[in-house]
Amino acid sequence: MENFTFVSPTKIIFGRGTEETVGGEVKKYSKKILFCYGGGSIKRSGLYDRIVKSLKENGIEFIELSGIKPNPRLSTVKVGIKICRENNISFVLAAGGGSVLDTAKAVAVGVPYSGDVWDFYLGKAEVKAALPVGAILTIPATGSEASNSSVITNEDGWFKKGINTDLIRPAFAIMNPELTFTLPPYQTACGAADIMAHVMERYFTNTQHVDLTDRLCEGTLKTIINNAPLALENPKNYDARAEMMWANTIAHNGVLGTGRETDWASHKIEHELSGIYDIAHGAGLSIIFPAWMKYVYKHNTKRFVQFAVRVWDVDLSFDSEEEIALEGIKRMTEFFKKMGLPVKLSEINIPDDRFEEMADKCTSSDTKLIGGFVKLKKSDIINIYKLAK
Amino acid sequence: MENFTFVSPTKIIFGRGTEETVGGEVKKYSKKILFCYGGGSIKRSGLYDRIVKSLKENGIEFIELSGIKPNPRLSTVKVGIKICRENNISFVLAAGGGSVLDTAKAVAVGVPYSGDVWDFYLGKAEVKAALPVGAILTIPATGSEASNSSVITNEDGWFKKGINTDLIRPAFAIMNPELTFTLPPYQTACGAADIMAHVMERYFTNTQHVDLTDRLCEGTLKTIINNAPLALENPKNYDARAEMMWANTIAHNGVLGTGRETDWASHKIEHELSGIYDIAHGAGLSIIFPAWMKYVYKHNTKRFVQFAVRVWDVDLSFDSEEEIALEGIKRMTEFFKKMGLPVKLSEINIPDDRFEEMADKCTSSDTKLIGGFVKLKKSDIINIYKLAK
Repeated sequence: MENFTFVSPTKIIFGRGTEETVGGEVKKYSKKILFCYGGGSIKRSGLYDRIVKSLKENGIEFIELSGIKPNPRLSTVKVGIKICRENNISFVLAAGGGSVLDTAKAVAVGVPYSGDVWDFYLGKAEVKAALPVGAILTIPATGSEASNSSVITNEDGWFKKGINTDLIRPAFAIMNPELTFTLPPYQTACGAADIMAHVMERYFTNTQHVDLTDRLCEGTLKTIINNAPLALENPKNYDARAEMMWANTIAHNGVLGTGRETDWASHKIEHELSGIYDIAHGAGLSIIFPAWMKYVYKHNTKRFVQFAVRVWDVDLSFDSEEEIALEGIKRMTEFFKKMGLPVKLSEINIPDDRFEEMADKCTSSDTKLIGGFVKLKKSDIINIYKLAK
Repeated sequence: MENFTFVSPTKIIFGRGTEETVGGEVKKYSKKILFCYGGGSIKRSGLYDRIVKSLKENGIEFIELSGIKPNPRLSTVKVGIKICRENNISFVLAAGGGSVLDTAKAVAVGVPYSGDVWDFYLGKAEVKAALPVGAILTIPATGSEASNSSVITNEDGWFKKGINTDLIRPAFAIMNPELTFTLPPYQTACGAADIMAHVMERYFTNTQHVDLTDRLCEGTLKTIINNAPLALENPKNYDARAEMMWANTIAHNGVLGTGRETDWASHKIEHELSGIYDIAHGAGLSIIFPAWMKYVYKHNTKRFVQFAVRVWDVDLSFDSEEEIALEGIKRMTEFFKKMGLPVKLSEINIPDDRFEEMADKCTSSDTKLIGGFVKLKKSDIINIYKLAK
């Protein structure tokens, strides 16, 4: 196990009806806030009205930043920053999925910074301060409600980049699984793939002796594998929705990565896809992860055997470790398919003519290498895109 | 899953050499502190000198509260409160195991309270404020370094009582597994039993559909089952010590109990034992848990089957669910024995003449019942003591 520092201070308020507590939570921080949300879904579901009621009851003034899109845009972030500055706003509330939450976090770091907020995403500047953020989650997928991450797309060149800092961990996260009953099947499945990806990015590591976090990862994966199909079968299955929602937080609040080197190559390889083609991040991951696994498993076949046996119940009586490892990857791929997710680029009509460009963007950092488990260079990334064709 | 609120804000600083950061952490809170520790072990190991060096380098003035005993005493807590008040101290640092940490927490709630600190432990008053506490852990057992609990013994009648409040979660916890290399085998084993007990108190629940936390509990138990024997075999096995130390925090920071009714009967039944006979809490638990399980398993045999199969690898081909459940309890008992722990009261010379008195104390609350999984009355508790003879 490696040395680590870990802090996850987000107050989790979980369960039926919890959105009604939002005003009481917000007023501990501010009486004047920016209220971020996406399209009309929170209005159709009545969530918007319940939030507004609670804010008003607690005497909280708010300005809205609405229309936040999936793969959220830098231009929207800049609008939010401007509103906050002009109105002396000191708290950002987000109601929605990862895109809304990540936008709120980007606004939160942008307001106290005199330069261009994109500097942080380019690694040109370090976050030193942020407004507090509160979250009301409606889509379990990105784990943003308690994570230290925010991912934003710059339309100028379609660069999709992320930041990580404990300063953007939300002050509170309100999580009512009922709010996810209306999620369409495809979005539910994409969310499941994203949650699983957050676990797997941590699971595939070169760090030895990480028994506890290995087992916590495996338990979280099994929970999603068992419950995502139940949620797809019956979208109003509260218990299945609750398992997915809480697993979403556990998968990405950082606890599963404590003391271990993590990977994140698949996320970066996927970000180029969803950055350019505007596909759902989870669908990109269900395509990239099987390809990445097939490309790297020989680096540590035993770890893939453990994954196959403990997560996918592969019987150890297969003839070779390699067969067991491949069977694990196969079962994961089949699981994605069964959930209605694509596992090949061709299935969502992504052609093979921009692999080089995407691999270039992917390796634009100083080191030109991505990934912790296996360090990948540009040619490796092109090979992985090819395996995913 | 039940509705829940969960917050675990403790900053974890984990790994080799981390105690050297203590001064830097403390000075974020105060320049004048109470420094609590137990006997001479932190002096012999050199930890005391390293802490003092770091405090001095950061210009932190400290007054010592030393000699804190296992099953820590109310009288010591009162001395600490007096020192803090007389010296205008606003931070409590604890270096040691659960007894030292729980004493520090008790001092922290006692200082700003005008009444008798024991009021909190009797449930006569509610904690409204506490000084911040920092922890340097030397014994993985009670999970106190990130928990919301403090357990204190009142020598006047030997009452052992606990409080739970998020206000006493430490601000930071410094955890260097090397500091546990010198723990004697018996204390290592007692710690393992205590950690397992914290998980099992949460695992045995009447709440349905708690897949994720079930699996996280099972993974934490398996980690201890695999690593405690390694630590006993080679006390300087860093990896095994690290797994135990981190499992200790995960077991008791509250995450494993989220969304589920928990039990705590075994803890209360044990507290009467260690309160009166001054035995190690972990040794009391290794005696009480098997007895409690045998007494209650029929309440939900299926849950004990799951425990047997997933935690103890019992093969499902046993003839009946009851056999499988009992085999799980048997394997746990054998595991305690193998670690050198007692599993019967007679093994540590505790006679059967005070069962009634202890059961009386145990049920002295208004409701006269203890436990969440099965509500136990006085006669049940006497029966459990008898099963543990």
